[in-house]
Amino acid sequence: MSELFEFGKGILESQPFSVLLGTELEVFEPGTAVLTLKVREELKQQHGFVHGGVLSYLADNALTYAGGSVLGDSVTSEFKINYLRPAIGRKLVAKATVLSSGRNQAVCQCNVVAVSDDGERIVAVAQGTITKAGPKT
Amino acid sequence: MSELFEFGKGILESQPFSVLLGTELEVFEPGTAVLTLKVREELKQQHGFVHGGVLSYLADNALTYAGGSVLGDSVTSEFKINYLRPAIGRKLVAKATVLSSGRNQAVCQCNVVAVSDDGERIVAVAQGTITKAGPKT
Amino acid sequence: MSELFEFGKGILESQPFSVLLGTELEVFEPGTAVLTLKVREELKQQHGFVHGGVLSYLADNALTYAGGSVLGDSVTSEFKINYLRPAIGRKLVAKATVLSSGRNQAVCQCNVVAVSDDGERIVAVAQGTITKAGPKT
Amino acid sequence: MSELFEFGKGILESQPFSVLLGTELEVFEPGTAVLTLKVREELKQQHGFVHGGVLSYLADNALTYAGGSVLGDSVTSEFKINYLRPAIGRKLVAKATVLSSGRNQAVCQCNVVAVSDDGERIVAVAQGTITKAGPKT
Repeated sequence: MSELFEFGKGILESQPFSVLLGTELEVFEPGTAVLTLKVREELKQQHGFVHGGVLSYLADNALTYAGGSVLGDSVTSEFKINYLRPAIGRKLVAKATVLSSGRNQAVCQCNVVAVSDDGERIVAVAQGTITKAGPKT
Repeated sequence: MSELFEFGKGILESQPFSVLLGTELEVFEPGTAVLTLKVREELKQQHGFVHGGVLSYLADNALTYAGGSVLGDSVTSEFKINYLRPAIGRKLVAKATVLSSGRNQAVCQCNVVAVSDDGERIVAVAQGTITKAGPKT
Repeated sequence: MSELFEFGKGILESQPFSVLLGTELEVFEPGTAVLTLKVREELKQQHGFVHGGVLSYLADNALTYAGGSVLGDSVTSEFKINYLRPAIGRKLVAKATVLSSGRNQAVCQCNVVAVSDDGERIVAVAQGTITKAGPKT
Repeated sequence: MSELFEFGKGILESQPFSVLLGTELEVFEPGTAVLTLKVREELKQQHGFVHGGVLSYLADNALTYAGGSVLGDSVTSEFKINYLRPAIGRKLVAKATVLSSGRNQAVCQCNVVAVSDDGERIVAVAQGTITKAGPKT
């Protein structure tokens, strides 16, 4: 387990909201982050699909991780998400990558995939700006 | 309590994720929706602020409610959020309004405000497209 | 004419693309900018409406001006735009305001209105991040 | 030259704004569109870079084309763009692809690349929703 991955796992474990939801860090390398989430009843909305807010949380967090992989401790400044289809399945996988980065900010994209017995389907795409936390250098 | 408000409360109670987070519907009138959320430890991230994913969930849901107030049962197709400052306080208030609507879609904006002992501060702004659920008419 | 307004007009006149389109600065005060554009044939698309790209240019530029009114010389880092209805009329008016600003960045919103003989109609709304140009301080 | 490509070229030639800017259609296949634009003085802003509004126009139009390649005559409902670096060079290339599509809407992404003597650099990324023009079916 790389130092970067351990750093990332530590951050995730210190986010009470990520612990509440059950998010796991699967990949954390320079320029890439993959977060996963087991789908359970309490993550759903009124139609039985995963709540859009869960997808946006997961995309937001994966974007922050991707940016953080090159910037260090970071926050999401802004992002945009398009929901492509209802999220059904047993697991969500959010993969984010860095498109461009400077000293203080990175622009990242993220795909959220729902994994079910029928295979994998992309359910949301997101794009946003990640900013280094703390004093700017 | 208006029929629309009862309808809205019913939807919220049937969203397991909103129940998990503790979201409450405060206002639900044609063109406007206000959702509130008590801040508690498990909604936070590693720096002690409310997790951005909570803000994006709340904005997303308020946008859907605003759109739903004129379209009926609806889903968020897409939205964009800018985080303005760390969210600190005891309560979040997301107020969304409809800017424009047609038969099947509405464009809405949302402000998320954090309420603390020091007053109210806007912490995020969002803008998105809400689409009527079910078969298009 | 205030010093800020003169500064703003000077910038606009030094943007060849804004000169090509015929953009005019109407208001430029701390936190607010209004740009206008006379609609003419060559700004249209195939259905006779103003081309969406003209609206996005005007929103982008108005956002930059609003941010620049508090940051000084600035660029748009990112923005999002929703088109609300076809843009018809003789003039476009883009009004942008600052929602929040720090040393290096500002988050702004913009409404684009089409003015015709029948009155004014909002045709697009935008939201984005403006960043101070040059070395960060 | 395929029928789709001819249809696409015809649309572009009937957009006065695209003619004014000099946009050319390079690729137009189901799910993909590439638009190019020769950089000239009057497309620039005050720092000598291509004006952001030109990039947003080109991204917007490429997104519409990508969506239109699967939907037929279409308009952009909304999009978001991140500017990654100043656009310098002799030519812009905007490549858009369809991520997901239904009967009336498609979600598309677009990269805008600046081509100079030093090679190609990505200068902007965009993501948006394209909607079929005319009566919904």
